[in-house]
Amino acid sequence: MAKKTTRKSQDDKRMKERDKATLAKIVALADTITEAAFKHGDISISIPTRSRANTIWNRKKRILEMGDNKASRELFNLNQAKQFMQTMLHSATIKELIEADKTSSLRSVFYKAKHTVAGTRENTFDTQEESDPILEDLEVTLGALREELHIFAENRGAMVGNITLIDKGDEIDCRRMGSGGYALPSIVEPDVIEFKKCEADFVLHVEKGTVWNRFNEDRFWEKNNCILTHGAGQPPRGCRRLLQRLNQELGLPIICLLDCDPWGHYIYSVIKQGSISLAFESSRLAIPEAKFLGIRAKDYRECDLSDAVKIDLKDNDIKRAKEIAAYPWFKENKAWQKEIQHMLDNGFKMEVESLITKDISYVTEVYVPERLKKRDWLD
Amino acid sequence: MAKKTTRKSQDDKRMKERDKATLAKIVALADTITEAAFKHGDISISIPTRSRANTIWNRKKRILEMGDNKASRELFNLNQAKQFMQTMLHSATIKELIEADKTSSLRSVFYKAKHTVAGTRENTFDTQEESDPILEDLEVTLGALREELHIFAENRGAMVGNITLIDKGDEIDCRRMGSGGYALPSIVEPDVIEFKKCEADFVLHVEKGTVWNRFNEDRFWEKNNCILTHGAGQPPRGCRRLLQRLNQELGLPIICLLDCDPWGHYIYSVIKQGSISLAFESSRLAIPEAKFLGIRAKDYRECDLSDAVKIDLKDNDIKRAKEIAAYPWFKENKAWQKEIQHMLDNGFKMEVESLITKDISYVTEVYVPERLKKRDWLD
Repeated sequence: MAKKTTRKSQDDKRMKERDKATLAKIVALADTITEAAFKHGDISISIPTRSRANTIWNRKKRILEMGDNKASRELFNLNQAKQFMQTMLHSATIKELIEADKTSSLRSVFYKAKHTVAGTRENTFDTQEESDPILEDLEVTLGALREELHIFAENRGAMVGNITLIDKGDEIDCRRMGSGGYALPSIVEPDVIEFKKCEADFVLHVEKGTVWNRFNEDRFWEKNNCILTHGAGQPPRGCRRLLQRLNQELGLPIICLLDCDPWGHYIYSVIKQGSISLAFESSRLAIPEAKFLGIRAKDYRECDLSDAVKIDLKDNDIKRAKEIAAYPWFKENKAWQKEIQHMLDNGFKMEVESLITKDISYVTEVYVPERLKKRDWLD
Repeated sequence: MAKKTTRKSQDDKRMKERDKATLAKIVALADTITEAAFKHGDISISIPTRSRANTIWNRKKRILEMGDNKASRELFNLNQAKQFMQTMLHSATIKELIEADKTSSLRSVFYKAKHTVAGTRENTFDTQEESDPILEDLEVTLGALREELHIFAENRGAMVGNITLIDKGDEIDCRRMGSGGYALPSIVEPDVIEFKKCEADFVLHVEKGTVWNRFNEDRFWEKNNCILTHGAGQPPRGCRRLLQRLNQELGLPIICLLDCDPWGHYIYSVIKQGSISLAFESSRLAIPEAKFLGIRAKDYRECDLSDAVKIDLKDNDIKRAKEIAAYPWFKENKAWQKEIQHMLDNGFKMEVESLITKDISYVTEVYVPERLKKRDWLD
């Protein structure tokens, strides 16, 4: 292992490279605008369109991507002038953050830019709902992840297992993290989190902390040589990005254990293909190879479960299930079409936690190990 | 440091003692019922009443407590028979969990007991909303914390700082936890979490992970020799219990940095005095000595903040603020009466994150250090 000082200075060097690149993009954006201003021309920015219509399913790469549509945001246009100003304000904040080598939350960035325009009664921003989309515009315009703009989302989720990583110079041995685990940060780019040593064969990702506790308490990761993660529901960006890095850089399969309901299917879909609202980031967040191990619609019979596990599908669930079945990646996938239809035929949902009806540790000692052995999962 | 094997066996020994005690209580409960049954007498359990009317403000101890009211839950009573059965089912699950030395979530315990009663169409439980209160009844009846019944809540929150602890035999050095931190588990009783070495002078508890990130990134805990925690909003039981242990066992002041709004005041109130719904657990969760450092209503002027920080109080906020001002511990506290009145007079709320309008690190480098130095907080 390199000494900490060496590691630190390597970090600094890499940090500077990534930040230099982002900074250069912001300065280039500003230069374009000032040049246009000096030429007395139209002052505008060209912003890729973040809409469903401009979202493309890339069948070959198996991820959602943005199309080529762009919209012009003009200063001398009454409908666009405010957004133009907002875009500039946030660009300035990002430049300041990168130069100070600090990071900030979406909410703080909103506060930073919020003020009453001098000599008017007009506010730059009134609510955070106005501010967040401007930051997404900047992400697509600059071609930089939000994390590269030094902005973090909330941190949620935890990890344990057969991996050692370096987080800002600190060595984290995920084999010795007790019952609590390592709390997943929001920014997990290589200059923050470095993988040092990993013997794990795969990652088991579960939906909830309560399920994660059962697996950690039973030391599933030790017995099955894996890494165990959860994202406290729909996994936040930090969790998704970390899973993607574990998959791409270490070649670890990402195996998901989620509920047998439209919400569980949707979580899997987002982990696997990305979401429409964040399609521009799929290449950095999506994991096309992620597997869905369970809970499966067939499990009620196959595992001989009792009626206690059944939760009736409501109208809204049925509607949602049909929407999800129509997603291009599910539409082309016969196994998934069958799975969703089977759930609809059952007429009920099932949660991971319901497997306790068999035995406290049935899920960790029987269900998951058997499925893993048979490689019985949906792709 | 003791060797891991020694530590482990000490853990086992202590674990057994705590569990033995809880198990004895459950067996005693069952014995009472079977004795009554053999005598052909009334079969009932006496359950302390968890209601506002039976909640007492103990001025001397400065915590909320339950009064002495009890209600009888009878088997031969059409209105109570189902709850009687439910209480017995959950008692059996808890006994099983303790004997297996495993823990479980509220949801799993619900599933474990849920089934259709043989020969009828009646379910033991229909929803988790029916199940959770039965577990609370058992807590008060047995005089055991939920955690002692081997049941955990969700885990939320994280910690870094100048402390080393042992979590299930693993040594966690919270000084070397990178940007992510140590994820707080739900069960933090002494047989799970042991404090090993602590140089910290106090705990700074902040509301949100996003604020916590700012303090961790600026290494506030290192510069100010403290421990830094957050509870991802209203702190869950595990977080509150850990703060209480840090306060009672290590004598560390718990200093809270929360928003200047009724929600921030309520979070503080729960940390300090306990909640009415969990009054029976105040002695294990409440921290009467907890301090409220900020944000304060006076800060708008005192810190020379811009109008950008103002969020108008809505009718509901005003109503809530008045309710909180009427809580007995706030009612008797002149400084708190003044604080809430000041916020109402201001007519606006302020969030911790709004301090970024001064400077990115104003909150970590100026605001909190200055207030700490002046010991300027509410008690």
